[in-house]
Amino acid sequence: MLTSRSVLRAVALASALAVSSQATAQTAAQRRASATPQLSAPTYQPEFGTMWTFDAPPLDYWRRTYGFAPDQKWLDHVRLASVRLPNCSASFVSARGLVMTNHHCGRECTASSSPPDSNYIQTGFAARTLADEKKCAGLYVDQLQSIQNVTDRVRGAITGSTPAEQASQRTAIINQIQTECNQQTQLNCQVVSLYQGGIYSIYRYRRFNDIRLVMAPEADIAFFGGDPDNFTYPRYDLDLTLLRVYENGQPYSPTDYLKWSPAGATENELVFVVGNPGSTGRLNTIAQMEYLRDVGYPASLAAYKRALGIYSELERTDTSAARRYQNDVFGIANSQKAVTGYRAGLLDTASMAKKRAFEQELRARIAADPKLQAQYGASFDAIASAQRELATFSPQLRYYGFGGGSNLMQLAAGLVRVGLFANAPDSARLAQYRGAGLENIKRQILAPTPIDTAFERLAIAAQLRAAQSELPANDQFLRVALNGQTPEARAAALVRGTRIGDPAFRQQLVQGGAAAITASTDPMIVLARQIDPLNRTQLARATALNAVIAANSEKIGQALFATYGTALPPDATFTLRISDGLVKSFPSNGTIAPYKTTFYGLYERSAAFDNKDPFKLPERWVTRKANLDLSTPYDFVSTNDIIGGNSGSPVINRNAEVVGLVFDSNIEGVSNRFIFSSAVGRTVSVHSRAIPEALRKMYDGARIADELQGR
Amino acid sequence: MLTSRSVLRAVALASALAVSSQATAQTAAQRRASATPQLSAPTYQPEFGTMWTFDAPPLDYWRRTYGFAPDQKWLDHVRLASVRLPNCSASFVSARGLVMTNHHCGRECTASSSPPDSNYIQTGFAARTLADEKKCAGLYVDQLQSIQNVTDRVRGAITGSTPAEQASQRTAIINQIQTECNQQTQLNCQVVSLYQGGIYSIYRYRRFNDIRLVMAPEADIAFFGGDPDNFTYPRYDLDLTLLRVYENGQPYSPTDYLKWSPAGATENELVFVVGNPGSTGRLNTIAQMEYLRDVGYPASLAAYKRALGIYSELERTDTSAARRYQNDVFGIANSQKAVTGYRAGLLDTASMAKKRAFEQELRARIAADPKLQAQYGASFDAIASAQRELATFSPQLRYYGFGGGSNLMQLAAGLVRVGLFANAPDSARLAQYRGAGLENIKRQILAPTPIDTAFERLAIAAQLRAAQSELPANDQFLRVALNGQTPEARAAALVRGTRIGDPAFRQQLVQGGAAAITASTDPMIVLARQIDPLNRTQLARATALNAVIAANSEKIGQALFATYGTALPPDATFTLRISDGLVKSFPSNGTIAPYKTTFYGLYERSAAFDNKDPFKLPERWVTRKANLDLSTPYDFVSTNDIIGGNSGSPVINRNAEVVGLVFDSNIEGVSNRFIFSSAVGRTVSVHSRAIPEALRKMYDGARIADELQGR
Repeated sequence: MLTSRSVLRAVALASALAVSSQATAQTAAQRRASATPQLSAPTYQPEFGTMWTFDAPPLDYWRRTYGFAPDQKWLDHVRLASVRLPNCSASFVSARGLVMTNHHCGRECTASSSPPDSNYIQTGFAARTLADEKKCAGLYVDQLQSIQNVTDRVRGAITGSTPAEQASQRTAIINQIQTECNQQTQLNCQVVSLYQGGIYSIYRYRRFNDIRLVMAPEADIAFFGGDPDNFTYPRYDLDLTLLRVYENGQPYSPTDYLKWSPAGATENELVFVVGNPGSTGRLNTIAQMEYLRDVGYPASLAAYKRALGIYSELERTDTSAARRYQNDVFGIANSQKAVTGYRAGLLDTASMAKKRAFEQELRARIAADPKLQAQYGASFDAIASAQRELATFSPQLRYYGFGGGSNLMQLAAGLVRVGLFANAPDSARLAQYRGAGLENIKRQILAPTPIDTAFERLAIAAQLRAAQSELPANDQFLRVALNGQTPEARAAALVRGTRIGDPAFRQQLVQGGAAAITASTDPMIVLARQIDPLNRTQLARATALNAVIAANSEKIGQALFATYGTALPPDATFTLRISDGLVKSFPSNGTIAPYKTTFYGLYERSAAFDNKDPFKLPERWVTRKANLDLSTPYDFVSTNDIIGGNSGSPVINRNAEVVGLVFDSNIEGVSNRFIFSSAVGRTVSVHSRAIPEALRKMYDGARIADELQGR
Repeated sequence: MLTSRSVLRAVALASALAVSSQATAQTAAQRRASATPQLSAPTYQPEFGTMWTFDAPPLDYWRRTYGFAPDQKWLDHVRLASVRLPNCSASFVSARGLVMTNHHCGRECTASSSPPDSNYIQTGFAARTLADEKKCAGLYVDQLQSIQNVTDRVRGAITGSTPAEQASQRTAIINQIQTECNQQTQLNCQVVSLYQGGIYSIYRYRRFNDIRLVMAPEADIAFFGGDPDNFTYPRYDLDLTLLRVYENGQPYSPTDYLKWSPAGATENELVFVVGNPGSTGRLNTIAQMEYLRDVGYPASLAAYKRALGIYSELERTDTSAARRYQNDVFGIANSQKAVTGYRAGLLDTASMAKKRAFEQELRARIAADPKLQAQYGASFDAIASAQRELATFSPQLRYYGFGGGSNLMQLAAGLVRVGLFANAPDSARLAQYRGAGLENIKRQILAPTPIDTAFERLAIAAQLRAAQSELPANDQFLRVALNGQTPEARAAALVRGTRIGDPAFRQQLVQGGAAAITASTDPMIVLARQIDPLNRTQLARATALNAVIAANSEKIGQALFATYGTALPPDATFTLRISDGLVKSFPSNGTIAPYKTTFYGLYERSAAFDNKDPFKLPERWVTRKANLDLSTPYDFVSTNDIIGGNSGSPVINRNAEVVGLVFDSNIEGVSNRFIFSSAVGRTVSVHSRAIPEALRKMYDGARIADELQGR
């Protein structure tokens, strides 16, 4: 599946960057015409992928490649039939407001709708009648009404000379545009920064707040194959939730919805994925990619490995641990797979050579134009230099702090900082302690947090061991952190000696303010007091360098857009994109992975693992098996360009009919984060024929299947 | 599947090396006791694999690892129940002489037994009654009766001082031992050189000549998945032939046969594979492995790629070509997969480091003992030096000749050499033209050979292009081969200008002898005359270096055996071995490949590919599907150590019952040729439960299934 912890974080970040506004109507054609003039004829560059915005669809490229280019009516229809959930993509799929998305995208609603004695996540749910549909508290869907380029207005307002001044002016004008738009249109407006600030567009959404659960299968069939099969293909998952949008207590009748394709996806067919990819790094410079490849990702992978080692150690000594830590382990394993994949793309020398050639050409084009050279010429080297400097203190940055997963360390850090920052001005506080942040963190600290001492001991010891192996022997952090002991002894002593696991003790410290913190002899507080200044020095250094990188990335984005225009799609920003692709098998494991799977394969994989978890079938899939046509297509793959945030995207054919439902990428596709290739990377979707077959044969859901199929 | 062209060649080579004798009875214990004394306690070295000989089973290692060690009765029973076909392994599996092997191992018999209007290879065959069983002309099975160490006798007879003298004495004593044995025992006796000459053993076989076909399924189910799935797993193949041994016109009742396990292979179970692995290179030196990794295999892979390019070019312009070249393409693709796998093992730096450490330790042990040092001390460097020298003229050795697949070039070479060698003494001829060889080659030349001019043009041009890119511009071979033209023009001119495609013209040249060859102005003959001396110079150089390598390999084999004794199994020699392993899933493609597949998977893979070739099911597997229990285990994997020649080996459990039938290795296992690892390499077998299920439900073969299952 696509939505992992790390991916969700990426999505949240992208949303934070996508600040919200109002402006005048403008057609796609006008938008293209008003784009910054291009230096040369823009050409399609496959390694930048196909996450096209709806205001700049690559009609010529599509016509040339597929002999098909949709008209504006088709594009408007598809855009309006597509919706966005808080962290996922989705689409209207019936005249009465049915919305299709992935199982995990509706998970919270499915869980909270369950009756007290049962859990729909485990049992599955299909509403017999409209009246049985369950309200999803807090869930909403956003429908993109229009897009408008507001680059000139944003740029015009930025007149300051320092980066800090410019940043504050940028925030102000974006907030102003969004507020104006919200007031004038009653829509939910967001200003989105595309091409790293190369252009700014306002995205206007209609928000629907009455969303109800119609159907969700059992988690065991939605995530069949669990962690091992995650990010792989062939796959056998019914990763589906059906919701319904209501308006005034009645099913909403959308102006636009996607009809159901009777045939579904067929081999080598042209298909489009319409959804909201969260975050990509395709416009990154080589220096940024090399930093991730050689410094950032290896450090993350080492941390995941340490964390998994801790859980496996815990599971060895405690038989109930496996179940208790299952979600944590799954989350880390998922991130590990994802980051391994991201890094694999960066380790591919052929792809990197292509990227390097592209960057060299771009730099040559910039150098050839004195005006561009003056604006952007120094940016590549400025980034490279900042990345190089970041690499020099990467171990210090990672270990001088409170990492490694220990809750006690986090609590100690929070207590010390809340105390020290209480009477300090915002400017002297770490960013997350500014304004209302301080009170939020205080609340978190005081909330009852169960402390798992076995885990704490192992986590602190592992972190100290790792620090010991990467930092020089005479390191100042190591001196205070180890206090002359072995990592294991020190961790045991800290966990045994501290009282901060006790909420009352924490309350006491918070109330005591800076004085209580300074006077405390609790070993964890003492340690956190010692680490805090070391940590802040490293953070300040890194923050300054990251600001340099951000400022220069924006310039490079502008240069890219000035040079290539919309011939290159912008990096993903969790906003609506349309990606073209083909339904296509791929070379895998020495042979061919077929373009589709069928229900036969579900039963094969379950039987091959003797029906053991995570290949265990839900009860109804065993007892009702004879009802199913086992040869029904189940999942399939296509070459569309997706990433986390695309979960729940519809896959449609030329007729804008649903042929599938995106739910994952294969492991080879994960490496597309930085450099896109359709050689072996694939989008994995539920086949449209599997959904009504399962609804009718497994879930007594003929009512819903009929609605989807327009019967 | 295991038997590829290259593997078959390897098997033939191993058989050629395994020269056939007589001696006194000796138990395994006596045999171990009389082995050359060891320098240190021998320990199991996993990277040397588990192809144990029956006269030195590693009982202690088995007991330690599995808590199980068979007694001598078990070992004798299993050895006698196992048999060898000309190129495959097999086993007795019923009291009335049923023999189980792979589909391709019985292919010749299955094809030649077919009625005129039909082909059992396509239709499958199951004899209704004993009387319907079909005689397999020319087929025989060999049953190993006994093994005896004859090292001392062989060594005692080698008294010469030059390598040539020693070689001829070795051949003579081996022939003498074999002839004596054949006469005294009426058995088929072969002296086998193990540990590269470290020891010599005589293997005595009873040969059965009346073999009949009992059952063979359709090729489409035996090789389901064809070329793409070859060397991969999960797999869905019924790679089976059942034969029966007859004696005096009646089914033979073997003294020993393997009973059928009711449960078949279960997960994590200890299993043994008993069969005749053809050839491995685990005792090779690092220098030999590096040569293959860096010079030999890359050259082979480039040649395969060129050849496949030619076929794909032909197929582009000629729609009937695909079918015509199917076998050739399959053979090359199979070799390409195999060699890619072999090389992958050598490219694995961790494995190679292990191997290097082993070699360094061995060299240190030799150096520490003055006697060993005097005998073997110089051998590693002698091999390394010869390999280095071979590498210096590798392009010349490869291109100064008649390679590249052109039949015309081969005919021209043969014509020129038959002419020039006709009146020369044997010593002046190339090896294959000596003695009766000359007449054989003459016959081949004069046989009608259809010439495919489109293929010839492309093959000659591709070979010339490759030569041009690898040889220096002023190279003497290139000068004559290209004759100042482009490769394409030269190839076209040669194919257009030559008459040697005409058998009558060839007849004329052969009859004309040396004079006709010398006088010929046919452009191919002219070219072959020019190439011949260049080619012979290179061959002579390579032959001398390979003799150095062979002589020193034998010394290293002796040193290894002197040092480690039977703690390391010898390299494969297409003689009977027993390998231990576990039925075990493995990490694959980002997830887990299950330990077994079921019939569900067969229907899944066929449906996923829309029942297209090579995933097309035979008719009866479609029409009779409802009869089958789809959850029946079909194929499975285990960590046993196998290679080409093991095709058809039985997989047995602790009770010596059949739990499976070996038919392939996964692609990861192919790299085990030089360095064995059970991390991801797996033996792929048909599960014992699939065979009676298929016999009963698909082939009306209850008679045969009952016999297998002892009902």
